[in-house]
Amino acid sequence: MTALIGDAASATVAAEVRRALEQRPTTGDRLDEIARYALLAPGKLLRPLLLVASAEAVGGTRENVLPAALAVEYLHVASLVHDDIIDGDDLRRGRASVHVRYGVADAIVTGDALILGLFGAIADCAAPDAAVVAAVRVLAQAGEDLCRGQVQEALLVPPGPGVAGSGLDAYLEMASLKTGALFRGACRAGAVLGGGSPVQADVVTAFAEHSGLAFQMYDDLLPFLADPAVTGKPGTSDAANLRPTYPVLLAHREGSAADRRGVERALSGELRPEAAHDALRDAVVSSGALDLAVTGAREEATRAKVDLGSLPVADAAGLLAAIADLAVNRDR
Amino acid sequence: MTALIGDAASATVAAEVRRALEQRPTTGDRLDEIARYALLAPGKLLRPLLLVASAEAVGGTRENVLPAALAVEYLHVASLVHDDIIDGDDLRRGRASVHVRYGVADAIVTGDALILGLFGAIADCAAPDAAVVAAVRVLAQAGEDLCRGQVQEALLVPPGPGVAGSGLDAYLEMASLKTGALFRGACRAGAVLGGGSPVQADVVTAFAEHSGLAFQMYDDLLPFLADPAVTGKPGTSDAANLRPTYPVLLAHREGSAADRRGVERALSGELRPEAAHDALRDAVVSSGALDLAVTGAREEATRAKVDLGSLPVADAAGLLAAIADLAVNRDR
Repeated sequence: MTALIGDAASATVAAEVRRALEQRPTTGDRLDEIARYALLAPGKLLRPLLLVASAEAVGGTRENVLPAALAVEYLHVASLVHDDIIDGDDLRRGRASVHVRYGVADAIVTGDALILGLFGAIADCAAPDAAVVAAVRVLAQAGEDLCRGQVQEALLVPPGPGVAGSGLDAYLEMASLKTGALFRGACRAGAVLGGGSPVQADVVTAFAEHSGLAFQMYDDLLPFLADPAVTGKPGTSDAANLRPTYPVLLAHREGSAADRRGVERALSGELRPEAAHDALRDAVVSSGALDLAVTGAREEATRAKVDLGSLPVADAAGLLAAIADLAVNRDR
Repeated sequence: MTALIGDAASATVAAEVRRALEQRPTTGDRLDEIARYALLAPGKLLRPLLLVASAEAVGGTRENVLPAALAVEYLHVASLVHDDIIDGDDLRRGRASVHVRYGVADAIVTGDALILGLFGAIADCAAPDAAVVAAVRVLAQAGEDLCRGQVQEALLVPPGPGVAGSGLDAYLEMASLKTGALFRGACRAGAVLGGGSPVQADVVTAFAEHSGLAFQMYDDLLPFLADPAVTGKPGTSDAANLRPTYPVLLAHREGSAADRRGVERALSGELRPEAAHDALRDAVVSSGALDLAVTGAREEATRAKVDLGSLPVADAAGLLAAIADLAVNRDR
């Protein structure tokens, strides 16, 4: 278990979620084996933590929403399993990705089963039926938004010689869908299942919107900041997929003509992934985009925390604030 | 629109489902475009019909369950989209399959979005929250069973020289999961959302179990009975995938030594798909398995109808009976 946040409260939640994932009932068949492999990778369990903290922040109890905490992890892991197929990423969380270990066919089907299973898990929460139905809606919508973001991501046009590219705004809209959606879904479902008022649900949703964006912005920075041995994924994946990311688009907008050319060449497909990654790193550093991007991500994290003080349970609200802070201060 | 059943009641249901599919709200983006392409293929709309007929048979109203009727079609279509990727089938319902037209990446994501959207649709039904939660559970379980069946299908070992193969029992267990699950899910969700009693829900579930098996058995026969131009999919797909199907396994069990050798050779991978399909057809016909398989499928259809008379609304129960009959009397 590798909790994102070192404090006792989040470690306890992560341990409980982890134990529940380990103790999932299994028929012992291949589908359950693959799902177990996918779910028990040493992940941050960030989305379950968001759901539980949101539920507790509005006065709900952890036990009652624990199945939904698993549910958001199912959705997150399903999207990772399918994403790794799409991107051809062989490594995930430091281990072989699911399709490498079990084949593409079963990886597709296991992702599907996790998406389906998440709704069964929500139905297992100890909450009024009306709240369960509301949480089903919230997570169905969050999942659809995530899918919409994935399709939009593939449509992003990298900047090239004489090509403006999709630009930073299109990128941020995509990130709000792709990462923001699941943050919003986890927090809002937590508040709804925890018995929060509509206003409280809106407060955690706004928190999720900004902290999700902060998280994605910082995630894009990790290949330029961190050691692949720590992140558990190759630092060159974005470059290999010719994917324009937040700091890269910022370098293109803010940098010198040489920086722009460097970015355009790296995303043109003519370089090998390592060389492309190095060229992007050079442009991101020399343009000042690296520092700007860190600042931008941290500003989103600050915005995320603005209204948390209005929530009734201060400890849990404090945990949400800590998650926002850690989202932009991490090495994996 | 190509309704499976020609009578007025089913044509009306199919037309309403079709219209609702056409009028799905869309943002106009690529994901919605792909989902529309996938959903509006000229399909049989069998699962929506099963759901509506089950709801009406227990006294429910069509309007109230129409969103759930769409939901089961979403699940069915999602599984087809992902299945076609897995099997490399380029043709579906007479048109390019989704991944051929839009690429594998977006086909995976669109399938995911349809699975997620189905739960939002269930939540839109005009039914008590408790019934909606029950229907969510039913369809999550049905979907997981479907996935389990898909994984089991890939594990089926074809009979070969000196290899018994997985045999007919393993095949039928797989079919009960893969096709039966969605039939059961559609009928049971319909009964639950339609306000049926637990006993009535069990009656339509038993109907679904047998009619689903009958449907799958007969589906396996179509490559040997029907014209690919009518079925809309290549007759050689099963053979190309070296997939043992119901009549083929029956031919292997019931046929002569020559029939067995023919089946084993066809499933060994040494023949081209067309030649393998021809060899299977020869064995299936000369062993008498074709006739046996038709009889077996029709016996399941008969079993499906046994308890339908106990349902309160005779017209709708009659529609269920007609679906069971048509499942084993069709050319596509």
